[in-house]
Amino acid sequence: MDKRYPMNAWYAAAWGHEIRHELAARKICGKGMVLYRREADGAVAALEDACWHRLLPLSLGWLKGDQVVCGYHGLQFNSAGRCTYMPAQETINPSAGVRAFPVAERHRLVWVWPGDPALADPATIPDFHWNDGTEWVGEGGTFYGLKCDYRLVIDNLMDLTHETYVHAGSIGDEAITSAPFDVTHSGTTATVTRWMTDIEPPPFWAKQLGKPGHVDRWQIISFQAPSIVVGDVGVAPSGSGAPDGDRSQGVNGAFLAAITPETDTTCHYFWNFARTFRRDDEQLSRDLQTAHVNDGHGVYDQDHAVLEAQQRAIDANPRALFYNLNIDAGALWARRLIDRMLAAEAPAPFIPREAAE
Amino acid sequence: MDKRYPMNAWYAAAWGHEIRHELAARKICGKGMVLYRREADGAVAALEDACWHRLLPLSLGWLKGDQVVCGYHGLQFNSAGRCTYMPAQETINPSAGVRAFPVAERHRLVWVWPGDPALADPATIPDFHWNDGTEWVGEGGTFYGLKCDYRLVIDNLMDLTHETYVHAGSIGDEAITSAPFDVTHSGTTATVTRWMTDIEPPPFWAKQLGKPGHVDRWQIISFQAPSIVVGDVGVAPSGSGAPDGDRSQGVNGAFLAAITPETDTTCHYFWNFARTFRRDDEQLSRDLQTAHVNDGHGVYDQDHAVLEAQQRAIDANPRALFYNLNIDAGALWARRLIDRMLAAEAPAPFIPREAAE
Amino acid sequence: MDKRYPMNAWYAAAWGHEIRHELAARKICGKGMVLYRREADGAVAALEDACWHRLLPLSLGWLKGDQVVCGYHGLQFNSAGRCTYMPAQETINPSAGVRAFPVAERHRLVWVWPGDPALADPATIPDFHWNDGTEWVGEGGTFYGLKCDYRLVIDNLMDLTHETYVHAGSIGDEAITSAPFDVTHSGTTATVTRWMTDIEPPPFWAKQLGKPGHVDRWQIISFQAPSIVVGDVGVAPSGSGAPDGDRSQGVNGAFLAAITPETDTTCHYFWNFARTFRRDDEQLSRDLQTAHVNDGHGVYDQDHAVLEAQQRAIDANPRALFYNLNIDAGALWARRLIDRMLAAEAPAPFIPREAAE
Repeated sequence: MDKRYPMNAWYAAAWGHEIRHELAARKICGKGMVLYRREADGAVAALEDACWHRLLPLSLGWLKGDQVVCGYHGLQFNSAGRCTYMPAQETINPSAGVRAFPVAERHRLVWVWPGDPALADPATIPDFHWNDGTEWVGEGGTFYGLKCDYRLVIDNLMDLTHETYVHAGSIGDEAITSAPFDVTHSGTTATVTRWMTDIEPPPFWAKQLGKPGHVDRWQIISFQAPSIVVGDVGVAPSGSGAPDGDRSQGVNGAFLAAITPETDTTCHYFWNFARTFRRDDEQLSRDLQTAHVNDGHGVYDQDHAVLEAQQRAIDANPRALFYNLNIDAGALWARRLIDRMLAAEAPAPFIPREAAE
Repeated sequence: MDKRYPMNAWYAAAWGHEIRHELAARKICGKGMVLYRREADGAVAALEDACWHRLLPLSLGWLKGDQVVCGYHGLQFNSAGRCTYMPAQETINPSAGVRAFPVAERHRLVWVWPGDPALADPATIPDFHWNDGTEWVGEGGTFYGLKCDYRLVIDNLMDLTHETYVHAGSIGDEAITSAPFDVTHSGTTATVTRWMTDIEPPPFWAKQLGKPGHVDRWQIISFQAPSIVVGDVGVAPSGSGAPDGDRSQGVNGAFLAAITPETDTTCHYFWNFARTFRRDDEQLSRDLQTAHVNDGHGVYDQDHAVLEAQQRAIDANPRALFYNLNIDAGALWARRLIDRMLAAEAPAPFIPREAAE
Repeated sequence: MDKRYPMNAWYAAAWGHEIRHELAARKICGKGMVLYRREADGAVAALEDACWHRLLPLSLGWLKGDQVVCGYHGLQFNSAGRCTYMPAQETINPSAGVRAFPVAERHRLVWVWPGDPALADPATIPDFHWNDGTEWVGEGGTFYGLKCDYRLVIDNLMDLTHETYVHAGSIGDEAITSAPFDVTHSGTTATVTRWMTDIEPPPFWAKQLGKPGHVDRWQIISFQAPSIVVGDVGVAPSGSGAPDGDRSQGVNGAFLAAITPETDTTCHYFWNFARTFRRDDEQLSRDLQTAHVNDGHGVYDQDHAVLEAQQRAIDANPRALFYNLNIDAGALWARRLIDRMLAAEAPAPFIPREAAE
């Protein structure tokens, strides 16, 4: 099977507040990791979750200061993965240790780099500033272990036509299906822009705007390879100038998605819905959270039922092809950018000596 | 693994009353299908249960008139499988569509043909007239997803010796084991005939007959390839002429089985037990249904515990052979007729040019 | 995958009291067996748990005297596996039968030999006399279907350093980790001997001894290939001569383990903790049983959580190596002795004729 996700990338592994001075297990890109926050400096460490000695998950052990103690025979590892204690022997095998993964905390999330540590540059952590809780506010959550290939989530978010069908009655609307859209891209990003002008607002947005009459609605969705999607969405009264850049009369939200491969067919989906309006209204924050995830009834719950069913269909029809529609243009660019990252990680082809000379 | 079921055959997929103007999913011979009854003419349609676009099961969508709407992006398909609507585009790819399966309704069942549509001839729908509710009456049911190869059910029904052991105390009887039997066959059918003359009737039949004394008991079991079994069974007072064709003093039932492969190791088993006696006695119909299926205590429940255990044993011993007894003669003919159908569907062997000349 | 367990060995299959005059299923070394105690002589029989005819597990049938009756078609097998009855036919195929496994009852356990019956010598049944209930007393139990390779249990028992970490607070103690130990071996056994002299007794042993002051503590663990471990353990007041052979002032226990492969990654673990002190104290027997197994809170429950997690880690990292510490010397000898048995069972390598001459 072809590789489905690049290893040399920053992936969200946890919300910052989830990682305390205790061991937390996560599987990221097929790799078991144990995360914890160091006492000494408050930074997060991420180690391979398998003892060097007999493979027991270190996450079943405990912390002794900032050292991880294996729960089986008591081997200890520091936050760089180096073994610092072995039971019943004075000398420690100098090569003993577990892998330490590059890790960084930014935009309220903990990011890990499962690939080659030498290539991990914090400057390439995705732009997720909408999640900072400063200019934009909102409270999201995580679907851990969503049972689909992370790319199906990206497909879903890069084309909002599905709102008309999956979310009929809340944010779905026939206008989405009929509005034209543009797709642009750079070497690492792809953007889908759709303006629906002079339309009846769908129920959700009518309520947020709180003004009668037609609106201009926008959906500007940006993908950052390999697994970040940010959607700049909102409505403003028709004629108030939003398409020309003046959104001052409207309401503006951003859906945020950091989708992290767990295995080939499961992923962790860190989400938020942030906004610039009524930022102090904590009840609104809670209501928006519930609108998205609500014990099976939120809009994301609806998406996930579809996504998991789609994955099961793919598993049952491994040779079936995807056919494409015009609406898939954004998702196809996202896939293309992922494929480029995968190609860059592929081993160099073997070139026989004679041929090379 | 060798193919286990022919594709070019009519298989029962549902009871007619189960299929209304709404989407119903069935897996038949490994193929996901979505069935529904058309508003326009009341006929049943059967489509591939995977959207042309992204494979989402169409059964998760809904009907719009007689068109199936995909629940993800709203593509529509008519009952011939042709795509009639794509979101956000005027032109429809003319090749877009899903497969439509030949389907027919007869003898109170819906039959589908999973193989080559060009070969589907309604004249070859199995004879299952006992199920019509006219001359014979009875209320059966379906075991959906029985966890065994459909051929194990055929083996079970083609040899009723097992009644002595699996159904001791109801229809089982030492007489079955000791009575001789004949096996005959045609190109597509096999029949096992067993007469037990001048015997004590087993409890079930004594009760149905309602007369004291010895009986002649018959079991005439007919197989129609690849997956229909009908058993003509009954008793009549000894000496009343049943073996010579006069059953007028006796009671006559027919067990009906349409066994449909779901996967290689699961099947749907549509059954009925019809009779020509006390046809207006609805309580008797209910009692007979309960005698067969009763929350684990009916005779078919007993069979199924054995069949599923047998399948698990086969799975655990994939190279074990079946050894045969005399009693297996009927089942072996049934298997031989299935094998002929399979051979007829096998790709032609490759014959090298030189060898052929 | 390399074979993980020798077939030519005696393995514990059940406690003697578990096998009555009724059918009991066990899977031993990947082989389904049905065990029962014969009426005629009280001896235990072990047959292949699959009918010769159609593979139905014989354990789903019943006994008729000392014959096993198949629950499907009534074939009968005697305790040597020979078919003695076939339904509806006078003549029995003389080759019809199921495999009978050599079986013996000793030390309160039933032992079976899954390999070549010609090699099964009762003289080679492991020495497990501590379990007889005579000189030593104790009541143990069985973990059926423990989800790990049986060798992980052996590793666990051959190195008690893990007590310090897994069983901190009961029998674990820093003294174990720091005490030196010796490893000796013969062709079929390996022994680890550790003496901790002049130490504070850990809570469990302090209570058993019931005397104040420092103790000498011993752990002498013996492995009999392929799957028996017996640990001679105890404490005596320091200076009372235990290291020189006089244990009369101390308390002595023995943990007993017969670990039987069920499949490559599951095992049955028959255990006991026997003692020579307070032998008539039945409450103590019950308390010791509870100390070991207590709904997840006993010391063996703690071990098993670790062992099953270790197996999952191995399954998830099939190519990962085990690295070894000094403390693994005993376990490594045990593995080496198992490997020798496996090598002896391997088919002879093919030697081309020319090369051999």
